[in-house]
Amino acid sequence: MTQLEYARQDILTDEMKQVAAAENIAAQELLQAVKDGVVVIPKNVNHKFKAVGIGRGLTTKINANIGTSRDCQNIDYELKKLEIAEKYGANAIMDLSTGGDLDKIRKLVIEKSSICVGTVPIYEMAVIALEKYGDTNKIDKELMFDIIEKHCEQGVDFITVHCGVTQQTIERLKIEKRILNIVSRGGAILAAWIEKNKKENPLYEDFDRLLKIAKKYDVTLSLGDGLRPGCLADATDRAQIQELILLGELTQIAQNAGAQVMIEGPGHMPLNQIKSNIELQKSLCHNAPFYVLGPLVTDIAPGYDHITSAIGGALAAAYGADFLCYVTPAEHLRLPSLEDVKQGVIASRIAAHAADIAKGIKGAIDIDNQMAFARYSLDWQKQIKCAIDPEYVEKYRESSKPVDKDVCTMCSEFCAVKKLKDVF
Amino acid sequence: MTQLEYARQDILTDEMKQVAAAENIAAQELLQAVKDGVVVIPKNVNHKFKAVGIGRGLTTKINANIGTSRDCQNIDYELKKLEIAEKYGANAIMDLSTGGDLDKIRKLVIEKSSICVGTVPIYEMAVIALEKYGDTNKIDKELMFDIIEKHCEQGVDFITVHCGVTQQTIERLKIEKRILNIVSRGGAILAAWIEKNKKENPLYEDFDRLLKIAKKYDVTLSLGDGLRPGCLADATDRAQIQELILLGELTQIAQNAGAQVMIEGPGHMPLNQIKSNIELQKSLCHNAPFYVLGPLVTDIAPGYDHITSAIGGALAAAYGADFLCYVTPAEHLRLPSLEDVKQGVIASRIAAHAADIAKGIKGAIDIDNQMAFARYSLDWQKQIKCAIDPEYVEKYRESSKPVDKDVCTMCSEFCAVKKLKDVF
Repeated sequence: MTQLEYARQDILTDEMKQVAAAENIAAQELLQAVKDGVVVIPKNVNHKFKAVGIGRGLTTKINANIGTSRDCQNIDYELKKLEIAEKYGANAIMDLSTGGDLDKIRKLVIEKSSICVGTVPIYEMAVIALEKYGDTNKIDKELMFDIIEKHCEQGVDFITVHCGVTQQTIERLKIEKRILNIVSRGGAILAAWIEKNKKENPLYEDFDRLLKIAKKYDVTLSLGDGLRPGCLADATDRAQIQELILLGELTQIAQNAGAQVMIEGPGHMPLNQIKSNIELQKSLCHNAPFYVLGPLVTDIAPGYDHITSAIGGALAAAYGADFLCYVTPAEHLRLPSLEDVKQGVIASRIAAHAADIAKGIKGAIDIDNQMAFARYSLDWQKQIKCAIDPEYVEKYRESSKPVDKDVCTMCSEFCAVKKLKDVF
Repeated sequence: MTQLEYARQDILTDEMKQVAAAENIAAQELLQAVKDGVVVIPKNVNHKFKAVGIGRGLTTKINANIGTSRDCQNIDYELKKLEIAEKYGANAIMDLSTGGDLDKIRKLVIEKSSICVGTVPIYEMAVIALEKYGDTNKIDKELMFDIIEKHCEQGVDFITVHCGVTQQTIERLKIEKRILNIVSRGGAILAAWIEKNKKENPLYEDFDRLLKIAKKYDVTLSLGDGLRPGCLADATDRAQIQELILLGELTQIAQNAGAQVMIEGPGHMPLNQIKSNIELQKSLCHNAPFYVLGPLVTDIAPGYDHITSAIGGALAAAYGADFLCYVTPAEHLRLPSLEDVKQGVIASRIAAHAADIAKGIKGAIDIDNQMAFARYSLDWQKQIKCAIDPEYVEKYRESSKPVDKDVCTMCSEFCAVKKLKDVF
């Protein structure tokens, strides 16, 4: 049975208890949220780790993408990224590998991770079709479901499935005339497949078959946004919203069937459209958890897209997004390095934490208050301890030593905090 | 005469023409905005550079702080920071020096800058009082106005004056009981002075004298927020808002007298309080330009405060803040390095640009659209050209070379953009 089915029978699972304890909320409250479909607990029956909850009333979670490509196939290096992502606080990892031995790396990621693992099975389908037939348009329906079942059996906790890329949404896309059409890898593979084969997307047409597999292993479906905008000018257009409508319908079908489901969202988007996008998703998908990629609030900052994404992500999460996919400084430029992964995770954590304070998550601000007291006390050891990246703070401080150890080299003898200690 | 006085006489100055041309708006429209006090053009009559406008309807401007401290007194290094700040797009530079030969560095910054220059004269007053009497509480009123006049005569374009730190606001602060009292250096020096001498702040009491000096050189007064919150828990409290009320009154007095004026704002602040703070400032200060420091949306990210500040700054500017003071990764830790300055300027530019798109500044999104077309065309040279930091993008791209030069090593043969070129 899935966590959703247990909740419907009012059975409190170990996973629910773990999540409730981690979030410091009542277990019954968590059970109700799972029952309502506003919280998911992505945890494959074949994967052992401490369960994490994603959704309404819980802290905002963050995901880090890792994985090989044809151009970068070093499995050990990708596994180091997993370590770094965990060390800096990622709650989930997605293995997006498309180069080298895909089964091997997936199994290793699942085995070595102590966090939630996601994949995008269409990537492996494409790799196989390219190897076998030299053409991703020759992926056949059986291959699709076989690969999905394999991922689920291996212990993947959530899978991105681009079920909303359909003949209808592609038609809308053509009428819309975007600058960047489709920038989702999976979305592009499926759109090309649909156009070339003049057939409907099997993941949409045979959604029930997908549900059966997902339910068998309690894999959470992450309904992918294949039509997400790839630039600000394409944001919140009819193609994107058409897909979201279909994803909303599929959410309802999935939940009725007892499968856990969340929705993926954009993408590139002007800052002033973020609120409407979150409200729209929550409304069309009946408050199912929302997993956003970015949003990136400008297109012109490659090399710094962890920052453009932290701006958009903080705002999205403050308005109700539940799960942020990190964006690294390498976005649009290359497969991320270890340092890119670190920077991406930290920027996302900042966004998630700022949003948790803004949306009033109980206790979220406590660590900020501890930092504020440490600053008041000029207690540098405690400041280091409260920091999101203590080692880095220590390094910074070591790099520029003040004469007076109480202060820092910016204000030196004019430190406001120190000065006023005698006055107030 | 000041730009405000010229505007009142409907005289279109060269400075107004320069600003209108740079902003691509009608000169008469700009003149009206200056007349209404909703735009300032901080430009000392003794400082030659291309004038910049700050305020309603204009692009969001950014400032970079540089300057020595007792612990770091290398003037050449600070001048390199000026170069870097200009190179990466700062519109203004503040020299906050408190160590070494203050006159020398200030003169050099004014001489070498081709952008707007600001200072905080109270810092020099404090340095002199400490040297002379060993006590900043022994600053006398004549020293205050002498130093201010000297900065203005030397060609400083705007000065931060903490006129709102008064006996009344300090009383409010005591009742409020903050964690971090005052974190503004100038605010702390003045608060201690007021408490110790049991006298009113001369910059408040003798505001008319300040106005005379400012008007003589057309120096824009930047009314400092000495009571700005230094942590999330202290944000938007009675002490802060009391000071803002006084600053609003002083704004009106200054404008009536014909002096240009803008208001400084917080600080550390939960993301969900930013909108109210901007609205409040705009209302209490009759839409005078708003210059914000941050806001930093969490306290726990020293080493990454350029990111916490980009989040807050983007939001603040989208809601109407006109001028962002950069925050570097070194904030709370040390005097910034050259690299810190670069990172701070770029993060602020990202925030300002994202906000300009959000608030509908005409033409702001054009460069994003060019980038989007360059991505669609897989034109990497044009992508580099459109980027906020072209050299860095080039370096990134060089570091990880794909087999197929059209794409990048993240998606390799599965590049969505390339894939769909054949389909649509």
